[in-house]
Amino acid sequence: MNGLLTLRGMTTGQLESLLDLGQRYRRMIRAGSQLPQTLHGRTITTAFFEPSTRTRLSFEKAAAALGAVVMSFTPETSSTSKGETFRDTVLTLTAMGTDVLVLRHSLADAADLAARWSRVPVVNAGTGRREHPTQTLIDALTLREHFGGLHGLRMGIVGDVANSRVARSHLAALPTLGIELTLVGPPTLLPTANPWGVRISAELDDELGDLDVIYLLRIQKERGAGSGLPSEAAYARHYGMNEERLSMLKPNSVIMHPGPMNRGVELDDSAADGERSLVLQQVANGVPMRMAVLESAIGEES
Amino acid sequence: MNGLLTLRGMTTGQLESLLDLGQRYRRMIRAGSQLPQTLHGRTITTAFFEPSTRTRLSFEKAAAALGAVVMSFTPETSSTSKGETFRDTVLTLTAMGTDVLVLRHSLADAADLAARWSRVPVVNAGTGRREHPTQTLIDALTLREHFGGLHGLRMGIVGDVANSRVARSHLAALPTLGIELTLVGPPTLLPTANPWGVRISAELDDELGDLDVIYLLRIQKERGAGSGLPSEAAYARHYGMNEERLSMLKPNSVIMHPGPMNRGVELDDSAADGERSLVLQQVANGVPMRMAVLESAIGEES
Amino acid sequence: MNGLLTLRGMTTGQLESLLDLGQRYRRMIRAGSQLPQTLHGRTITTAFFEPSTRTRLSFEKAAAALGAVVMSFTPETSSTSKGETFRDTVLTLTAMGTDVLVLRHSLADAADLAARWSRVPVVNAGTGRREHPTQTLIDALTLREHFGGLHGLRMGIVGDVANSRVARSHLAALPTLGIELTLVGPPTLLPTANPWGVRISAELDDELGDLDVIYLLRIQKERGAGSGLPSEAAYARHYGMNEERLSMLKPNSVIMHPGPMNRGVELDDSAADGERSLVLQQVANGVPMRMAVLESAIGEES
Repeated sequence: MNGLLTLRGMTTGQLESLLDLGQRYRRMIRAGSQLPQTLHGRTITTAFFEPSTRTRLSFEKAAAALGAVVMSFTPETSSTSKGETFRDTVLTLTAMGTDVLVLRHSLADAADLAARWSRVPVVNAGTGRREHPTQTLIDALTLREHFGGLHGLRMGIVGDVANSRVARSHLAALPTLGIELTLVGPPTLLPTANPWGVRISAELDDELGDLDVIYLLRIQKERGAGSGLPSEAAYARHYGMNEERLSMLKPNSVIMHPGPMNRGVELDDSAADGERSLVLQQVANGVPMRMAVLESAIGEES
Repeated sequence: MNGLLTLRGMTTGQLESLLDLGQRYRRMIRAGSQLPQTLHGRTITTAFFEPSTRTRLSFEKAAAALGAVVMSFTPETSSTSKGETFRDTVLTLTAMGTDVLVLRHSLADAADLAARWSRVPVVNAGTGRREHPTQTLIDALTLREHFGGLHGLRMGIVGDVANSRVARSHLAALPTLGIELTLVGPPTLLPTANPWGVRISAELDDELGDLDVIYLLRIQKERGAGSGLPSEAAYARHYGMNEERLSMLKPNSVIMHPGPMNRGVELDDSAADGERSLVLQQVANGVPMRMAVLESAIGEES
Repeated sequence: MNGLLTLRGMTTGQLESLLDLGQRYRRMIRAGSQLPQTLHGRTITTAFFEPSTRTRLSFEKAAAALGAVVMSFTPETSSTSKGETFRDTVLTLTAMGTDVLVLRHSLADAADLAARWSRVPVVNAGTGRREHPTQTLIDALTLREHFGGLHGLRMGIVGDVANSRVARSHLAALPTLGIELTLVGPPTLLPTANPWGVRISAELDDELGDLDVIYLLRIQKERGAGSGLPSEAAYARHYGMNEERLSMLKPNSVIMHPGPMNRGVELDDSAADGERSLVLQQVANGVPMRMAVLESAIGEES
């Protein structure tokens, strides 16, 4: 493996050993322990061709916590606006000297291409509609911590599944970890094929009583009209987690959301802030899980 | 106290002990001494919802000088543009793991709200038209250094007092330190009420001979016409510090400005660059004073 | 000398001692050696009034590699948009406390002015159409490494010479190092005077057989039409390095480009990616050469 490009094809053992390392760092952070400077003398470059301050800061904090130097490349004011190709930008960043390239890009193939070109480990921080492996690892870590284990959990992934990189990464790895997935959403936002053989449903209310985890995808308002999205009000009415739907859940089931949340659309305050919500735990697991991923990426190289 | 939200209500002793610590750091920096790494292992997050590179860099340098890791959150390219609420952004930044949140926001209540939500100390780096506590501390430090003490000094705050967060922070703390304040400006830019019981005047020339400190507020050109602002030329004619007005000052009085200066409006070169100007000392005191504030914010937490 | 403002007037010995230090750092980086923390406790401020992420990151990585704290000032969201003069911005950044100011600006005089105003060493990271000294040093280091020495090498600088700061810096220093320069380009893009007494030619094909180094300048598409630029297609036809022109070169000659490259204009893939290309070595030498420049700037101060 070269960095972390995808979770597809990873075995249960490989996934769990990453989660174990993430969990170890999570506990050390919580205990205020001195963190091992395993990336001391290393350089981590974040290259976010699509803006995502939250994810970028999380990676950069993870890198700094382990002693690495961070270079933060954002192409807005850079050579890409001067006509440089993506390949040349990747080669240039690599030639400047980096030990890992953390890449975010709107192109689904971007991380694979960068890894082929650059010869340094590439960590996929979200590409196209296809991959967001660290988000899936973070969510698995959060669930494992909360439930004590993953096997047999039933998760409903709700919303714009067809366009969600998070949903695709979940589909690529969570079943391997023993989680049973159901895709829920308006038919226009569901995938047209089902190569994963998972349960698919257009009626959230029919599913709620069976699920341990309600995983709400973000409605990307910025995609705008004509994209198969119902109005926000209609979406909230049929798929938004609200007090009424909370009451239909099993006693121990939880609400997750990868953020940023649109309150009043995917969920209302009772769901976002209630005791079932794991949203802030997901955020808190971002840094330690990414510490594990960066360290593994380097470890494989050396 | 929770971080530094406001200077209102602080006692002379509290203010002076912050100034003492700032002064100690100022001297160490000037002497090139090794700085104590009191924030080693800590994370300071700057979250500037309103741009101010100068203030942000000053805080970030202060944090780094004491050994902290800095996370720099600017919402331009971030989740706030994706519809996330301010509260969720604050909770997210906190959940990522920060020991202090340094906040700049156009909303007057923002720092108080963030402190209530976040459970980590919040340092107010300028909010609304109401608070800019570190600027006031920096200016007090600068004056104490220059005059040897603050008690009995007469300061005229000149310009757009009604809309100035700096003026309000000065009003909240400088009288407690023994400074006598006069507000000077065109009636349209003066506050309509005077709960502070300070002297108010529309005629700068009448005041100049009595003042030890002429504190010039920045005219915010970006507020544009129709905001009660006279033309720049008219403003400069009546309130701009120029050679003629300099000659009306007492021998030891000084000129201050929080920056950035509009030369030719609030003051001309003879005032900005003359020997009465403390402008660059104000800037130089920014880093050590903010070191003191950050260290105090952490100290109270632990 | 005050920092590094220009290469004009530097002696062969001065240039070579900078190159020697750059080469030493290049070797240490390649060997993975521990780098000396010669800038520990120092602050390096990059102030890029013109965006260039690549150059800025290269300087910031160089500073961090030697242990300095980096402050990164970009004026987009800063006080310059609030009407502050360039001089006041320089004085403010200096007063905040920096040991070196690394400056990029569209104004040719900017670095000289900043050095006069600021009293700290200024390193010129590209100003106007006149200076880009570190690019020239990087390229000289790259050539010295590749050929074992510089004396007697023949370099053709191809393209928009009249508007190129890189070309002017090359003209200021490379002859001192023993390199013979020829300027090649369409007459509208060649300088109208020739104070350097170098060979000038409008016909690349006439020169190719004599040159050891083809140095391709970037066509700045963003300058737009009406600027003396032929169409991209016409430019590529007459001056673009392509397979046919590669075949006209001497056996050991090389291709260089300061980046970012416009593939299909200045050169095609066979030239950019072929074994004659030194483009990625140029990038790789950016960090060690800038380490040497920063360290020298500080050394002269203390």
